[in-house]
Amino acid sequence: MFEAAELGRTVSKEEYRKRELVLRGELLRAQQALRADARFPVIVVFAGVDGAGKGETVNLLNAWMDPRWIVTQAFGPPSDEERERPEYWRFWRALPPRGRIGLFLSSWYSRPVIDRAYRRLSSEAFEERLHRVVELEQMLAADGALILKFWMHLGKAAQKRRLTNLERDPLRRWQVDKLAWKHWRMYSKFAAAGEVAIRLTNRGDAPWAIVEGEDARYRSLAVGEAIKDAIRQKLADQAAGRPPQSARSESAASRKSQAASRASAARRTSPAASRVSILSSLDMTQKAPKKADAEIEKQQGRLNLLERKVRADGVSTILVFEGWDAAGKGGAIRRITAALDARDYRVIPIAAPTDEERAQHYLWRFWRHLGRAGGVTIFDRSWYGRVLVERVEGFATEKEWMRAYAEINQFEDQLADRGIALVKYWLHVTKDEQLRRFKERESTPYKQWKLTPEDWRNRDQWDAYERAVNDMIERTSTRHAPWTLVEANDKSVARIKVLTTVCDRMDRAIGKRK
Amino acid sequence: MFEAAELGRTVSKEEYRKRELVLRGELLRAQQALRADARFPVIVVFAGVDGAGKGETVNLLNAWMDPRWIVTQAFGPPSDEERERPEYWRFWRALPPRGRIGLFLSSWYSRPVIDRAYRRLSSEAFEERLHRVVELEQMLAADGALILKFWMHLGKAAQKRRLTNLERDPLRRWQVDKLAWKHWRMYSKFAAAGEVAIRLTNRGDAPWAIVEGEDARYRSLAVGEAIKDAIRQKLADQAAGRPPQSARSESAASRKSQAASRASAARRTSPAASRVSILSSLDMTQKAPKKADAEIEKQQGRLNLLERKVRADGVSTILVFEGWDAAGKGGAIRRITAALDARDYRVIPIAAPTDEERAQHYLWRFWRHLGRAGGVTIFDRSWYGRVLVERVEGFATEKEWMRAYAEINQFEDQLADRGIALVKYWLHVTKDEQLRRFKERESTPYKQWKLTPEDWRNRDQWDAYERAVNDMIERTSTRHAPWTLVEANDKSVARIKVLTTVCDRMDRAIGKRK
Repeated sequence: MFEAAELGRTVSKEEYRKRELVLRGELLRAQQALRADARFPVIVVFAGVDGAGKGETVNLLNAWMDPRWIVTQAFGPPSDEERERPEYWRFWRALPPRGRIGLFLSSWYSRPVIDRAYRRLSSEAFEERLHRVVELEQMLAADGALILKFWMHLGKAAQKRRLTNLERDPLRRWQVDKLAWKHWRMYSKFAAAGEVAIRLTNRGDAPWAIVEGEDARYRSLAVGEAIKDAIRQKLADQAAGRPPQSARSESAASRKSQAASRASAARRTSPAASRVSILSSLDMTQKAPKKADAEIEKQQGRLNLLERKVRADGVSTILVFEGWDAAGKGGAIRRITAALDARDYRVIPIAAPTDEERAQHYLWRFWRHLGRAGGVTIFDRSWYGRVLVERVEGFATEKEWMRAYAEINQFEDQLADRGIALVKYWLHVTKDEQLRRFKERESTPYKQWKLTPEDWRNRDQWDAYERAVNDMIERTSTRHAPWTLVEANDKSVARIKVLTTVCDRMDRAIGKRK
Repeated sequence: MFEAAELGRTVSKEEYRKRELVLRGELLRAQQALRADARFPVIVVFAGVDGAGKGETVNLLNAWMDPRWIVTQAFGPPSDEERERPEYWRFWRALPPRGRIGLFLSSWYSRPVIDRAYRRLSSEAFEERLHRVVELEQMLAADGALILKFWMHLGKAAQKRRLTNLERDPLRRWQVDKLAWKHWRMYSKFAAAGEVAIRLTNRGDAPWAIVEGEDARYRSLAVGEAIKDAIRQKLADQAAGRPPQSARSESAASRKSQAASRASAARRTSPAASRVSILSSLDMTQKAPKKADAEIEKQQGRLNLLERKVRADGVSTILVFEGWDAAGKGGAIRRITAALDARDYRVIPIAAPTDEERAQHYLWRFWRHLGRAGGVTIFDRSWYGRVLVERVEGFATEKEWMRAYAEINQFEDQLADRGIALVKYWLHVTKDEQLRRFKERESTPYKQWKLTPEDWRNRDQWDAYERAVNDMIERTSTRHAPWTLVEANDKSVARIKVLTTVCDRMDRAIGKRK
């Protein structure tokens, strides 16, 4: 079965550059269309041989697409809460909702295949387990889910080469432990179990693709193009189906009318109009150093090392990104996630609350996203919405957003008490620079989706937002949780500062533990 | 501080009967009004002396009110997931949404008071912890929550009497362990810590009531009446405030229009119309035995003993209640919960899905409610809605509900594999008996809230529902998860059968483990 994936296929650097450029745009557009349609989730399962690039591919997909709408999930040993429930509870917990993409590492295939390779499962018991997998995938597919499964393959000799190369790379050496070599020696047992798994679970509604894993460029394009094609196809196929869910647009509409009726009131109540502005004190003329890219890469390497240390220490990191529209939050986040192991971080995009969230205290929706120890949680917009958009648009009353400063400080105190490293960024651009970027987005086809009428409306409220931002920074820059103001007129300047700050913070968190 | 709660106050049996009757009606109406209003949650905290009736009071409140809209939560030692997050994460997780009542046993007060009594906390650290409690309660109260706190008190001599009495009661002996006596010997330390806790956290927006705990009748009425008064008052106070949340009614409306457009189609597609009906084979003329109440109590005692065994064994129980409107599901559930420790069960009422739930596979919302090992989870309506109301009303297409039988069987298989004891009840009444009960509800003031126009509409569809029920029973009565058909024209007959069945099932689950 695996012969076709041992052909030594490669892609040249030049070809890769060309195809990647096209693919990224296509993937982003497919992702946007998926979100807008919101009729089905995409579930992508990665399995296969150690060292075949599963984690790297998942990282790359997060970099290529918008990671805010991707759920990346790896499954380690079950927690005690998970052990007390049926085996699949952990997978149900992690399923992406319609309109999102879930990337699953070591999914429902991992345990059965390993147990079979180690002969902890009889051949019959193994098939029984695979049957349950089929039931799950069938059930999800019948409900509309698009399921794609990639078996990342290496021949035995190729795996040896790859493990050896990884061991020589100081940044990646950690991926190769004794277990990886042990599994390499058990190669034929894993291959046999893999073959059975693929054979019994390779179905029309959840097909496997076997991908040759040795050449990074080849495998990246193969996976990326397959995902893009499948999403496009599915969207086209069901263009004739039932209309998309309306829950999201309904609540957006009701929020909007609410906003209109309150906005004028809110504008009147903004205090602190005549104070010297913290934002206005920033030096926005900074230019990037000559070797900015090298500096970014250096900091990314540092981050990668630090991440493994904090994970080992059980220190969680929470990054909060706030900033003007078009200030480059997404790009900065991608520079961070690109340096991290996909198993260790989650990006939480904050949009309008769901109805379950509206039925609770506004902080409840942030509490629920706090991750386990050792991980990095990145909030793309955050609880500060309470004192920014909710204040300016009048979604919160003056009483509500005024008391929110204290509530937020108390919340962040509790994070600090648990030893969580919290970094809060405000990405600042000048009003002129924002205009320039808006216009660039308008005129660049693959960037148009980023610009919405709401961005223009927010721009009209620039002064109200600036007052709100200044108040926020003044009232919530605490010892445990200071704001980092990022001069973002130059993207490289911004990215270097973002990366350096999180590295320094992690460094201190580790030092403290010692 | 506690002197006023050591006066030996009692309530006579006769007075109790009279006041309880009134109070139950008032509590139910207050709870209904709270739900309809849905503008604020009610958070009731119980703390105090061992043996002062905290658990019993919570049980009684669940029996008096409709337990489907009550969230009862006790906090034991934290799980590993909880330990990896800030301390209060577990409390945020458990907060009731607006319109519901949360009853908290051993809440955020428990750990600080115990740690202080044991001198694991200095006086300053203790006050620091209490300060955090104040912040939490203030934050929730500011968001509209009604917070009530009851300190259940016993004098030292009274506690000794009470513990001794409990030890003599074979059904309650388990409540008194070595630790209870150890804490009794530490009485003055606990009393001192309690006094400080009450003093520092007794605030207008979250007041304490100290309740004398020795006489069960007195303390039950005291707590119940205080809760009822506070809910009423708060509802009245904010009658002039902002309009209630509209999310719920919006989605209900959109479901309804969807329903109208599909209902006629669905009616045409119901198969199995001419088969001999499983339901029609039931003997609906059964009358209760003479000593029905004694039998019910006997089974409740049995259930109470069994529950502690299954808890110790880590065997979870899931009860599913389906049945005609007015068939007595609520009453049957109350007979079960009355026999259980409030710490061990959860009642999950299933209504229309939230928008988060609609964005997932329909089984996702049930997976998320699966409890930890050793507990009893009671579903008041369940995943069978897919093949009942969703089929009959046309919310699900024929293809969807047809494949649901297999999906449900697979789901229940996974429960069985985890060793979970699953009991499924269909409570059956004849069409005539339902009519009689509807009319009784119409003419009994305190029962009117139970009858809605939807009940009459469902009754018009009796035949379509009967076909759906017959199909469901035929296709989902599996070896692991058979249906129990309950002849419910006579309420005592039904309750005895419900109780006996769950006891027998638990008995088998324990036997299997051995």
